[in-house]
Amino acid sequence: MEIKRKKKAFFITVEGCEGSGKTTQAKLLKEYLQEKGIEVILTREPGGSVVAEQIRNILLNPEYKVSSVCELMLYEAARAQHLEEIIKPNLKKDVTVICDRFTDSTLAYQGYGRGLDKKMIEYLNAAACGKITPDLTLYLDVNPKDGLKRAASVDKGSLTGGDRIEKESINFHNKVRQGFLELAQKYPERIKKIDTKNGIEETHKNIVEVIKDLIYNV
Amino acid sequence: MEIKRKKKAFFITVEGCEGSGKTTQAKLLKEYLQEKGIEVILTREPGGSVVAEQIRNILLNPEYKVSSVCELMLYEAARAQHLEEIIKPNLKKDVTVICDRFTDSTLAYQGYGRGLDKKMIEYLNAAACGKITPDLTLYLDVNPKDGLKRAASVDKGSLTGGDRIEKESINFHNKVRQGFLELAQKYPERIKKIDTKNGIEETHKNIVEVIKDLIYNV
Repeated sequence: MEIKRKKKAFFITVEGCEGSGKTTQAKLLKEYLQEKGIEVILTREPGGSVVAEQIRNILLNPEYKVSSVCELMLYEAARAQHLEEIIKPNLKKDVTVICDRFTDSTLAYQGYGRGLDKKMIEYLNAAACGKITPDLTLYLDVNPKDGLKRAASVDKGSLTGGDRIEKESINFHNKVRQGFLELAQKYPERIKKIDTKNGIEETHKNIVEVIKDLIYNV
Repeated sequence: MEIKRKKKAFFITVEGCEGSGKTTQAKLLKEYLQEKGIEVILTREPGGSVVAEQIRNILLNPEYKVSSVCELMLYEAARAQHLEEIIKPNLKKDVTVICDRFTDSTLAYQGYGRGLDKKMIEYLNAAACGKITPDLTLYLDVNPKDGLKRAASVDKGSLTGGDRIEKESINFHNKVRQGFLELAQKYPERIKKIDTKNGIEETHKNIVEVIKDLIYNV
């Protein structure tokens, strides 16, 4: 019996705090889908368009002191361009798109983390995205303390480089995680919370279960 | 009898289509105010700060194909930064600010000209500006046909060598002008329409009349 796909192409976003394993899991998911014969691209914001890269250069230049509203608008500008140049054309060609971070990250980091008005962020997210929303969002949950340790060991960055920053950062990341958890509760149909504490393979298995549910009429 | 100023510092924006003489008139106004002993700076959108100038470079590069929503967000990002770095600190120091283009240009160009949702633009304008609105907006009215001819002769750019916005069609600029005219009708207290067809000196005189009214209790 042939198992039919619900749609030809899906828009899947992967979200989570630092060290949640997003990048690894997004790659594993891409490989899984390819093995199933599903055409798929993996992208991330700001994602490969010339204009979006120019915006990224402004956002990541440590010499610039960008105001928090300016920062938010720049992220949304890059998102709008990335959607127009990368996400929409691929979905239109029936290519499934996996995107590493999307609108939920803006709410979690700028809204819950930095304390910018959440209604404003929701409005801007919608303005940048038009009618496009993810079919599925995988939220990879991790305790920020473990996540930052994991990220530090990957980066060879150090959590020991200043107690004040470490504490601030843990506090900030706790708020961000709280944001993701609230969003997952608010949109249970779209956002699936994935536990990451049992390692890479177990996490991938959990993701595959969710993905089967999304893709196939079984 | 000493004539008292209504406020110590004013936020004045100058708006209009290409070739309306904004830049010339803004300079003349600055000189006029300085002669009256009023401390004043002249700035322009989307520039004026390092970050905003970087954003301007993206916006005005004719090689980039920027989506209309991305363009809008970039203007608002530059505005938020420009407000934070230039406009607010100067007003706070009781320095009058003349700004060449502001929120009305976004409504006229992106809303009326490009057909983006005006309610969305108003929302984004407000998000970028917070509580700051101009005390006075000088809208310099010009027939786009005459204006573009003027702009071309100033730039030596001809209509083929100008920046991305100037290359738009007459039809586009007619819609932009219509936008400015409607805004002037909608906000008659704030926006004063200034006729420009009688030349630079006559236009400056008209502006001075409006400015006296704004600044002094006579």
